Amino acid sequence: MESKFKRILYGGDYNPNQWSEEIWEDDMRIFKDAHINTATINVFSWAKIQPSEHEYDFSCLDKIVDMLSRENYDIVFATSTAALPAWMVKKYPEVMSTDYEGRHHKFGGRHNACPNSLVYQKYARALASKLAERYADNPHVTCWHINNEYGAECYCDNCQNAFRVWLKDKYHTIDELNTAWNMEFWGHTIYDWDEIVVPNALSEGIGRDKTAFAGISIDYRRFLSDSLLNNYKMERDAIREQKPDALITTNLMGTFKGLDYFKWAKEMDIVSWDNYPAYDTPWSQVAMTHDLMRGLKDEPFMLMEQTPSQQNWQKYNSLKRPGQMRAQSYQTMAHGADTIQFFQLRRSVGGCEKFHGAVIAHVGNENTRVFRETAQLGRELESFGTKTLGSRNPSKVGIIFDWDNYWALEYTSGPSADLRYVDQIHQYYEFFYNRNISVDMIPVDADFSKYDMIAAPVLYMVKDGMKEALESFVKNGGTLITTFMSGIVGQSDNVHLGGYPGPLRDMAGVWVEEIDALAPEQHNTAQFADGTSYSCGLLCDLTHLEGAEALASYGEDFYAGMPAATKNTFGKGHVYYIGTQLEKDGLAKILSEAVSEAGVNSVIPETTALEVTCRVSDTTRFYYVMNFSGTDQPLPESLSGKTDLITGKTAPAGSVLAPWDVMILQEPLA
Amino acid sequence: MESKFKRILYGGDYNPNQWSEEIWEDDMRIFKDAHINTATINVFSWAKIQPSEHEYDFSCLDKIVDMLSRENYDIVFATSTAALPAWMVKKYPEVMSTDYEGRHHKFGGRHNACPNSLVYQKYARALASKLAERYADNPHVTCWHINNEYGAECYCDNCQNAFRVWLKDKYHTIDELNTAWNMEFWGHTIYDWDEIVVPNALSEGIGRDKTAFAGISIDYRRFLSDSLLNNYKMERDAIREQKPDALITTNLMGTFKGLDYFKWAKEMDIVSWDNYPAYDTPWSQVAMTHDLMRGLKDEPFMLMEQTPSQQNWQKYNSLKRPGQMRAQSYQTMAHGADTIQFFQLRRSVGGCEKFHGAVIAHVGNENTRVFRETAQLGRELESFGTKTLGSRNPSKVGIIFDWDNYWALEYTSGPSADLRYVDQIHQYYEFFYNRNISVDMIPVDADFSKYDMIAAPVLYMVKDGMKEALESFVKNGGTLITTFMSGIVGQSDNVHLGGYPGPLRDMAGVWVEEIDALAPEQHNTAQFADGTSYSCGLLCDLTHLEGAEALASYGEDFYAGMPAATKNTFGKGHVYYIGTQLEKDGLAKILSEAVSEAGVNSVIPETTALEVTCRVSDTTRFYYVMNFSGTDQPLPESLSGKTDLITGKTAPAGSVLAPWDVMILQEPLA
Amino acid sequence: MESKFKRILYGGDYNPNQWSEEIWEDDMRIFKDAHINTATINVFSWAKIQPSEHEYDFSCLDKIVDMLSRENYDIVFATSTAALPAWMVKKYPEVMSTDYEGRHHKFGGRHNACPNSLVYQKYARALASKLAERYADNPHVTCWHINNEYGAECYCDNCQNAFRVWLKDKYHTIDELNTAWNMEFWGHTIYDWDEIVVPNALSEGIGRDKTAFAGISIDYRRFLSDSLLNNYKMERDAIREQKPDALITTNLMGTFKGLDYFKWAKEMDIVSWDNYPAYDTPWSQVAMTHDLMRGLKDEPFMLMEQTPSQQNWQKYNSLKRPGQMRAQSYQTMAHGADTIQFFQLRRSVGGCEKFHGAVIAHVGNENTRVFRETAQLGRELESFGTKTLGSRNPSKVGIIFDWDNYWALEYTSGPSADLRYVDQIHQYYEFFYNRNISVDMIPVDADFSKYDMIAAPVLYMVKDGMKEALESFVKNGGTLITTFMSGIVGQSDNVHLGGYPGPLRDMAGVWVEEIDALAPEQHNTAQFADGTSYSCGLLCDLTHLEGAEALASYGEDFYAGMPAATKNTFGKGHVYYIGTQLEKDGLAKILSEAVSEAGVNSVIPETTALEVTCRVSDTTRFYYVMNFSGTDQPLPESLSGKTDLITGKTAPAGSVLAPWDVMILQEPLA
Repeated sequence: MESKFKRILYGGDYNPNQWSEEIWEDDMRIFKDAHINTATINVFSWAKIQPSEHEYDFSCLDKIVDMLSRENYDIVFATSTAALPAWMVKKYPEVMSTDYEGRHHKFGGRHNACPNSLVYQKYARALASKLAERYADNPHVTCWHINNEYGAECYCDNCQNAFRVWLKDKYHTIDELNTAWNMEFWGHTIYDWDEIVVPNALSEGIGRDKTAFAGISIDYRRFLSDSLLNNYKMERDAIREQKPDALITTNLMGTFKGLDYFKWAKEMDIVSWDNYPAYDTPWSQVAMTHDLMRGLKDEPFMLMEQTPSQQNWQKYNSLKRPGQMRAQSYQTMAHGADTIQFFQLRRSVGGCEKFHGAVIAHVGNENTRVFRETAQLGRELESFGTKTLGSRNPSKVGIIFDWDNYWALEYTSGPSADLRYVDQIHQYYEFFYNRNISVDMIPVDADFSKYDMIAAPVLYMVKDGMKEALESFVKNGGTLITTFMSGIVGQSDNVHLGGYPGPLRDMAGVWVEEIDALAPEQHNTAQFADGTSYSCGLLCDLTHLEGAEALASYGEDFYAGMPAATKNTFGKGHVYYIGTQLEKDGLAKILSEAVSEAGVNSVIPETTALEVTCRVSDTTRFYYVMNFSGTDQPLPESLSGKTDLITGKTAPAGSVLAPWDVMILQEPLA
Repeated sequence: MESKFKRILYGGDYNPNQWSEEIWEDDMRIFKDAHINTATINVFSWAKIQPSEHEYDFSCLDKIVDMLSRENYDIVFATSTAALPAWMVKKYPEVMSTDYEGRHHKFGGRHNACPNSLVYQKYARALASKLAERYADNPHVTCWHINNEYGAECYCDNCQNAFRVWLKDKYHTIDELNTAWNMEFWGHTIYDWDEIVVPNALSEGIGRDKTAFAGISIDYRRFLSDSLLNNYKMERDAIREQKPDALITTNLMGTFKGLDYFKWAKEMDIVSWDNYPAYDTPWSQVAMTHDLMRGLKDEPFMLMEQTPSQQNWQKYNSLKRPGQMRAQSYQTMAHGADTIQFFQLRRSVGGCEKFHGAVIAHVGNENTRVFRETAQLGRELESFGTKTLGSRNPSKVGIIFDWDNYWALEYTSGPSADLRYVDQIHQYYEFFYNRNISVDMIPVDADFSKYDMIAAPVLYMVKDGMKEALESFVKNGGTLITTFMSGIVGQSDNVHLGGYPGPLRDMAGVWVEEIDALAPEQHNTAQFADGTSYSCGLLCDLTHLEGAEALASYGEDFYAGMPAATKNTFGKGHVYYIGTQLEKDGLAKILSEAVSEAGVNSVIPETTALEVTCRVSDTTRFYYVMNFSGTDQPLPESLSGKTDLITGKTAPAGSVLAPWDVMILQEPLA
Repeated sequence: MESKFKRILYGGDYNPNQWSEEIWEDDMRIFKDAHINTATINVFSWAKIQPSEHEYDFSCLDKIVDMLSRENYDIVFATSTAALPAWMVKKYPEVMSTDYEGRHHKFGGRHNACPNSLVYQKYARALASKLAERYADNPHVTCWHINNEYGAECYCDNCQNAFRVWLKDKYHTIDELNTAWNMEFWGHTIYDWDEIVVPNALSEGIGRDKTAFAGISIDYRRFLSDSLLNNYKMERDAIREQKPDALITTNLMGTFKGLDYFKWAKEMDIVSWDNYPAYDTPWSQVAMTHDLMRGLKDEPFMLMEQTPSQQNWQKYNSLKRPGQMRAQSYQTMAHGADTIQFFQLRRSVGGCEKFHGAVIAHVGNENTRVFRETAQLGRELESFGTKTLGSRNPSKVGIIFDWDNYWALEYTSGPSADLRYVDQIHQYYEFFYNRNISVDMIPVDADFSKYDMIAAPVLYMVKDGMKEALESFVKNGGTLITTFMSGIVGQSDNVHLGGYPGPLRDMAGVWVEEIDALAPEQHNTAQFADGTSYSCGLLCDLTHLEGAEALASYGEDFYAGMPAATKNTFGKGHVYYIGTQLEKDGLAKILSEAVSEAGVNSVIPETTALEVTCRVSDTTRFYYVMNFSGTDQPLPESLSGKTDLITGKTAPAGSVLAPWDVMILQEPLA
């Protein structure tokens, strides 16, 4: 299999421009000790390299590139367009964004440009072009990194005008738009495109997170995502003009709500992302997010940023424990990464990220625990050569993740304010994770036929074509898992009339008559035929069987006895409909049955508290075995006797993995 | 007694304009099954029926009115002026309101007009006039419903100018205004009317809810209430011009803080209101709010809106349990309603209220629990004919509710931030509710002589004339209950000097020297002569007897032994002064004595966990008996043997009411 | 020793202008009963005494001054410039401030002027000058009180321009500024002074309390402090021109964050401050704040405001218990006050402070507990004559308090969001307080040689010269206590590279490699050689000994065994480095050792739950003994037999102080 890289990239963000040149020499020496082979440069230097409209000054950048080239680094070249130069804001104030409250901003921060500013576009494009012209032919420039962590919002008049154009392209007529947005509601009927205003705190917004018209607000999210994507494509194309085969990416942010990453990935040569879990983020959620990032293109990805130890912007920025960064890096690769990159290589002297961890700490030398761990990992990765590069994570389970749905579900006013999209998806992902069943995170337009099982929790928005695609998947023998709050609306947030779960009703064989919302102090129970009973809450669907069988029934309240979860045979396949939020064990009971029936297998036959994934190259299966459990864990028998890629040694039967221990056990393909 | 209606109106908000005409036919058929006889139409259609300054298009509305007339509906005709047309905002941006933060809004939402905008006034008046001209003579148009849930705030320059005029009318001279607002404080002395600015976050506001000058801020609330009332009167008068005997209302919102509903009610032909309790609102509070709405005009009222089951905008929108909507509807009538109307008849397909319950759910047919319950209630109500219409709720107890006081009390900085007006009133109401003692919620200018007992909790603001009126009431044998934080200020929030409780001091026979504020974790006790002791907190008055006797004394702290509650004989009557927030049983102990002494009776002689009210027509007493207790309750003996209006059957001795059960037992007047 | 006063000033804010002249006569009579001898007047009367640009009207003020002079009051004369006249705002809108959100304000509130408004400056200066010209020669005018509780913030264009000038004066060149603020970070490099914008919510602000560039934001705080100080100096100089020997102050607010009070104190003739603890503020924190206010000039201070009993603007405004106000007043004097002044003498009739306590309550007479307690205290203070005036609080312990550090520490993003400067300082102060060890709160540029021990908790910012000063202090035998988060940055918030704690590393003999942040639910333990163990948390330094010895080691986690607290011998002295937040007893264990070794003594030899301080005049030691413990406490033996200044009686052995009791026991100097 092919990788985009000739070696595992190991390194990260590097800002020598913030330091004197004597420091650069130290850096090179120290990085070599850590087997660092790549540096991401020029992420935030626009003001420095372009002092005015017509002046560019690449002298410092030239020196950096020369040095890194000399040292045979893979250079990840950023375009510096994620923070505006102060001079530009002074001269062209409209280039700054206007926030949700309608306040036009002054110079400051980053991710601060109005994406529809022609001034911004003109100079960002020009800069990308200049950089490519100057540096793209350098053979050490391995990858282009456009902008940084796209995600700004803007609600200025400029964006308002662009939004109207975007809407005209989408709806063609005012009538179609009035219908799509259900503008008869609250008498919002419009007669002209220029009656449309941006949906923010001064118009349709209800608080920060809700809206009077989800149709408008979802479209505005789509528009903002597209606007930034256009900025990305503009820079990408400027680079392409200079270097048609350049490898181009931008760093994404996992489950970040603002951008439709599946749409973005189509325009990216490779996905890269920044992984910053909090001290209490479950490892299953980190794994899920990696799988989502891999799923964007269904290809290996770059880990563009992680911290060697500490972050600064979270509430409590705990240290990574000894071995944790290493284990976390291997987890990243276990889920599909071909690079391990840090933010950053040398810790800042000032600014709000000065307490963000780095390979070289403020002490300025290599005599730190964090450096030693970084160096150990560098040594290990270097030893792998290209073996794992480009290998894939085969999965028979897909979980649907959809940004339109994310937006729509969380805009919805009622039935419960506690419904969070990512949390809901994670409850399902976690089941597979705990059983080491490989999962692809997939878009709504994925090729479902690749999978034996598809989970689509809270599939609130069912867009055109999905009914047919999902029905075809099930008819052909697939197993679909879906839940409460599914099948409710179409692409513009208008309800699929005729009874919930709308387009899913036939295949699920149920009709949901009502949806009860339970306050946090309220619970019901789901009772199974075998006498077991589990707590449930948040929402309880009042469901009628229309062909499905009940797997569990409510134990309490006036709907006691009604189905809490059902299973329907549809064609050759099955649809499970889970009508309430079950406690973990209750959910596992149902999903275990579904998995077993669907013939979906874990990566290894044993049950274990270890995380185990499998990447497969043309020649080898790599079993990534990682201990995030906090206590010693025996190596599962089926994996003993295999050779560990890291140590080169065979793992004997009876091996034990201590906390944070990792093995990569190899099995030649037959 | 006379009712405004010829039958019990049963129906609700109906928006066929949001649906295709085929759906209308379904609606008519299904509504008939539910015995629905009224529809509220045209609530939000301004943009639709007026596409520009000079165009009106009533074609769709004509069809709706024709259909409903054909089907013999009572039409409640709304004027559509509660949401601006987008075109109007585009052409006349000043028509939109400016919020408390000083931000002028763009098009969006509803309740969005500046009430002092001449543009708004011109077109709103014109629309009301056009509608009345066209439809008022239709005999099926039973009632006019102006605007919707008035309550918007505006702080624009336009309002600022109008405020100055309003103030000139009130105070005549700058000197009088400087005195009223105590402008010597913090050197706020003004010399010209145009130095006055609106009190918001950019001027006198302290946070969202407090103010540096309560005098200004209370006047601004009065002004805003008057401004919206002027909007109401303007539309009302436009309709009157076309139809002098039209029945005109607007839907109120219970204890909504923004408007002085007692002042509003004087301009309304009938009070109507929208009842949306949360899942955990006590039934006593729902009852209190009904009594308040009845009290506004001391007449039967319309329930303009309730949900058949679920809401959407609350945090947790639970379903109404089977029987709950019916019981709640009867409770509404038990407290004086002559109509039961829903929001809405058919559930929206889109917009932020799409999860708000309706008679017809998204499934679109009558095969739902909610519909069946609606139909059952419709059948029952139809069977009553006109028997209960117009009947009254005779009460010997009045509880004073006053919006000026509400505003002033909650603006006050100190002694405790936890003081909430409605909560305080409810603590007293709840006592009477639990004993099934009928209560009128009355304004400060009520005819007190109708009552044996008046409760005036936290009567913080005592305006001119109230001292005399209350003293006269007590002197003539009445019993007055008042509490801490009473008698403190006059109409402009300036203190009644000379010792708390100011104008109430003589009649209460106490002087309150100090007011201690207790944090939530702090408590004192109130100890009674009989040795019982109850927890108290929030505020503790340090009271001296000036003729009164102590009913209870503090048990702790340096004021142990000082009176916590007192009773004074004044003329032929008594004044109870309760100087602290007592736990429920402690308050009940005092009020039980007061009630007993005052000869105030419960509706029935028995103590019961059932709610029982009595409405009286010219010929009959109707005992509404409702079980909100959650468990079976025996019918009190005094009510057995009477005939149930709902079933037509006699309630035998030993009858039991299950949860949510209701009986309306009739007793002919002697 | 010299005092600024000829008697103990006893009185407070007095606003007869808010009352009719009949009331004034009552006031004079009643105040005399309370032995009140001073009144602070004219605090908020600008609009009244200056009705327009060219008119002044001192008629009312003349009468007030005449009356007070006649009655032989010490007049504290305020300049009235803390609240703008409405007419000025109307005519010159720019005179109002613009808030952190960028919203320019309209007339309202107080502390509302833009400090850099030339209009404000012109008229404020003129007013001060006019007042001084008219009243400064009156021998009863003892003190001038400029403005009131300075502390407003402004972010207007005017301030932006002034900020640029301020920066030019500080940095001279753009390059120096770019370096100081580390503008290479996030590409913020600027090329011209006018690219600089104010750091608020529209630019560098991150939420309300954090910032992208601490260097900018700290400079802006310095600038705002200086801007207001310039306002102060401007008025002061205007008064000086009329009266060169006038005693001039302004009332400060303890640990208020906004102003660098050490810098301010240099411009003030005497420090005065307003003491408003909440109901749950520890007495040790009140004491610390008094010591800070005394420390500003290392001289006795004025208590300009306290409430006789209740406040209004706190959440729960409890009454001061009988004896509490008296005890609290003596505590104030015990820590260095030469005056006791109240806000206010007569309670307001209206406005947001009407529930703020006063000597004369709303009842309007002297028959109140609060008045009686005020009168008792007045009588006592009068009896002291001048004995205590000007006496000092000798201390061998200094605790460093630094506003630059306060700002920098709390702006810092990471490692923990729970780090609060004043809380951290208080944890150390409290130890000394509980042992009755006298403490001076000192600035970073204090003469350290006066002390045996200096505590510098969280000395995050170590500015130029401090390393040398602290090293010299320790070398000469001093004991320095410092903690985690010390020695991190220099004056512009750039890190001292080379290893934490930077400039303190040599003298502390430790290197801190990493800083772990613990969430509130996480803890570690500090284990001492004697087997005792204490909980610790918040932050845990991972420390290496470089000459120091470990006093305690972590008990848990991967850094178990690493030092949690250390002690280093440096020259003749010692440095204690406490690397984590210890529970109270653990901290006390270390500090007890340090105190004992340093030979620092308590004021008295006994351990007691009483607070005891010692003020020393030229002839006498005054032991202030106060019981804040809530229970009876025996008088320590070493104090028995001395004469109580208050009663004139000898305190016999076996004396007991009840709660709130106070003695001032005198001991002639040898």
